[in-house]
Amino acid sequence: MTDFIRNKKQLIEREKVESEARRLALEAMEAALASVNPQHLLRGRLKLEGDFLRIDHLSVDLKEVEGIYVFGGGKASAAMAEALYEVLGDRLTEGIIVAPKYQERAFRTGPIWLVKAGHPIPTVEAPNAVSKMLELADRLGERDLAFCLISGGGSALMASPTGGVSLEEKQDITRALLKSGATIHEINTVRKHLSQVKGGRLAGRIYPAETVGLIISDVVGDSLETIASGPTAPDPTTFRDAVAVLKKYRLWDNAPEAVRKTLEEGVGGLIPESPKPSEEVFRKVHNFILGNNELACRSASEYLNSRGVEASVLTVFLEGEAREAGRVIAAMAKYLKPKPEAKDRSIILGGETTVKVKGEGKGGRNQELVLSACRLIEGVKGLAIAAVDTDGVDGYTEAAGGIVDGYTLSQAREAGLDADFYLQNNDSHSFLDKLGDTIMTGPTGTNVNDLIVAVRVSSEGG
Amino acid sequence: MTDFIRNKKQLIEREKVESEARRLALEAMEAALASVNPQHLLRGRLKLEGDFLRIDHLSVDLKEVEGIYVFGGGKASAAMAEALYEVLGDRLTEGIIVAPKYQERAFRTGPIWLVKAGHPIPTVEAPNAVSKMLELADRLGERDLAFCLISGGGSALMASPTGGVSLEEKQDITRALLKSGATIHEINTVRKHLSQVKGGRLAGRIYPAETVGLIISDVVGDSLETIASGPTAPDPTTFRDAVAVLKKYRLWDNAPEAVRKTLEEGVGGLIPESPKPSEEVFRKVHNFILGNNELACRSASEYLNSRGVEASVLTVFLEGEAREAGRVIAAMAKYLKPKPEAKDRSIILGGETTVKVKGEGKGGRNQELVLSACRLIEGVKGLAIAAVDTDGVDGYTEAAGGIVDGYTLSQAREAGLDADFYLQNNDSHSFLDKLGDTIMTGPTGTNVNDLIVAVRVSSEGG
Repeated sequence: MTDFIRNKKQLIEREKVESEARRLALEAMEAALASVNPQHLLRGRLKLEGDFLRIDHLSVDLKEVEGIYVFGGGKASAAMAEALYEVLGDRLTEGIIVAPKYQERAFRTGPIWLVKAGHPIPTVEAPNAVSKMLELADRLGERDLAFCLISGGGSALMASPTGGVSLEEKQDITRALLKSGATIHEINTVRKHLSQVKGGRLAGRIYPAETVGLIISDVVGDSLETIASGPTAPDPTTFRDAVAVLKKYRLWDNAPEAVRKTLEEGVGGLIPESPKPSEEVFRKVHNFILGNNELACRSASEYLNSRGVEASVLTVFLEGEAREAGRVIAAMAKYLKPKPEAKDRSIILGGETTVKVKGEGKGGRNQELVLSACRLIEGVKGLAIAAVDTDGVDGYTEAAGGIVDGYTLSQAREAGLDADFYLQNNDSHSFLDKLGDTIMTGPTGTNVNDLIVAVRVSSEGG
Repeated sequence: MTDFIRNKKQLIEREKVESEARRLALEAMEAALASVNPQHLLRGRLKLEGDFLRIDHLSVDLKEVEGIYVFGGGKASAAMAEALYEVLGDRLTEGIIVAPKYQERAFRTGPIWLVKAGHPIPTVEAPNAVSKMLELADRLGERDLAFCLISGGGSALMASPTGGVSLEEKQDITRALLKSGATIHEINTVRKHLSQVKGGRLAGRIYPAETVGLIISDVVGDSLETIASGPTAPDPTTFRDAVAVLKKYRLWDNAPEAVRKTLEEGVGGLIPESPKPSEEVFRKVHNFILGNNELACRSASEYLNSRGVEASVLTVFLEGEAREAGRVIAAMAKYLKPKPEAKDRSIILGGETTVKVKGEGKGGRNQELVLSACRLIEGVKGLAIAAVDTDGVDGYTEAAGGIVDGYTLSQAREAGLDADFYLQNNDSHSFLDKLGDTIMTGPTGTNVNDLIVAVRVSSEGG
């Protein structure tokens, strides 16, 4: 078992039965994190056999390939690049990928140039890296092979607006769309038409070389179009659609001059349209989802089963306001009754909740979820509920998530902490931190959204 | 199968596979409603064998009993009284119970006087009935036996403030406490000390006669103190506590004169304290929970099993904002994947959600829950999600709840209905009504909170 959770020992130092529930929940999470570790995923799927590179049904004879190039960006891209270098070594020609600045580990990526850029707010390193990436892509020929290492965070890390649009202007229009009530599909329609990478444009630039997209999904439902805004996925929407969205929400007239100009030039054919599903480009694109939330959930479930714990994955589509999801999950966790004859029991949920921030505190959606949950399970013996963001960074905090049990609320009370007050102030991190109940992993180098595990052990077995 | 749902035929007229999912969900609900039907429950537990009346471990030799009296109130009390009369017939001496005005069915309750009063807003019939009830209780002697038929709604239906406090003043102070952020335990501490019935006071008045409490629970967790504010359950709180609560939330100074006077007289010993757990009274009280939410959930589950559908009761403790619970439940329902080899699958949840009303529409928590849920399951084949209030009255509507499937959202769109708009306006009833998707039972004469059933059938089997 890889020790992803740095403070695991401290988190399980409790009364015996609480300790056992905590240990099982945390170890299930570590099993899940191990299963979606980019190195592990890539090594498991991509095989070099003599001169043949195989992934699932695809087999590439490297004797027929001139150069092997690498592109992409996202929270898992650096680790994927490292693993790709491990597999291909000197056969790699060149590459450029973008990873978040806060990933401090030194990745050994050989000839792949690893650029660090800001996340979640894009910084200038992103467009600079992308223009180098696209220059390189443009040089590729029919007999070249390009890997695109794509994962969550890629939208910001490969932010690179078209034409005269600035990063700030693109962010402004995105914010205005978010406020306007536009759907995520509508927002992406606009963003894909202000980008040099999104909406299949990266694959378009790589063409006529062959593209192999290696993708770790942080999108509920794994839509290729949506993960990192789909650099290697066809885009069915058009410049005309993008203009229509802005007009529908009455944002056109007040949109930055450069945004209007770019979209108008696109409609007029002066900027190429994003590649459409039927285009030749996509006959040379092969996308593979290496890992996703469901894999993490199933791995947690298998781990618990191997420890004699009954486990149900209830969903991989979780959404909704974190504190409310926390109440429903607590209500279900509380009902995991240990029966004399039955095994210990657990439930697992995956997906991505959201937080409408109203307070001034420090927190994240997973920490807020467990803070909310702890209020409903007071006094329940042998029950632990843990939630983490699999990328290791929950909200803007240094924690990956948090863990609570039936005694968290009374411990808080003794420490003079009012759970409701902290929840109202979106201050979940401060609350859990003071109790020593934050889960600390550091950036994990992967990203398959959130994972929630509740384990109930029988008092007798504890 | 009793046909509780009047419009079942209409609700299941769909494409074959949707129809099958809907039928199973609705029939599971009818099985649940049948299992918590008061007549059914009372007949199953209370047995007259010769002169011996038996319920569980309790056996009463009616030859030793002088008179048999009946008291109580709640949504299930009229139906319980009818069943009690069926069992005991002429052996019943006298009684008085209170039921909601909207229950229009004629109940045959023999010598038990059935009073109708307002619910959920108490009306003057309630204190009038209670004073008759207490006069009768005061006349009982050691050799008498009293049944107390208690169920949800009993707090309002047996509203009867102490001393000079008016119904309006008691409601005002309750509302002020609700607004102040006081816990439900604190609110009940005050209410129990302004009541002639709540907090074990009814049992106190019946004493020295023997009390048998027959209770149908609408309280998550079945706390006897909380169901109908516990007319037959000991009250650990005091007048002094009630005053402290009002002072804590700074409501004391502005509380109605009569409220302050009553509580002060209580502290001074001029009004008797509510009976405490250790008191002699409770050696002669026997409370039995006849039915609750868990029984309804299990019955739904057993019914589905009998139809070859895998079923899991996920919780009987559901709480939270209805629309948010709807999202989590939809996320889980969507994950009920039909596998080629697997049986049809279902999930069942019980409890009670809440709605923060912000709009002007017509709705109820169960209808709002499914309206919210339908937005997440668009296009999912063979899936139905239904939610009902088991008392048959969801919110202030004539419907018990509603049902949706993967095609509800597109049908709404065709009909020009915007689901988000109706949800924002708390107008779930209008939305579902226009689609013919409200579940109509009429008042069921019972009350064990809410029941949510999601069924997924495989397309092949449909």
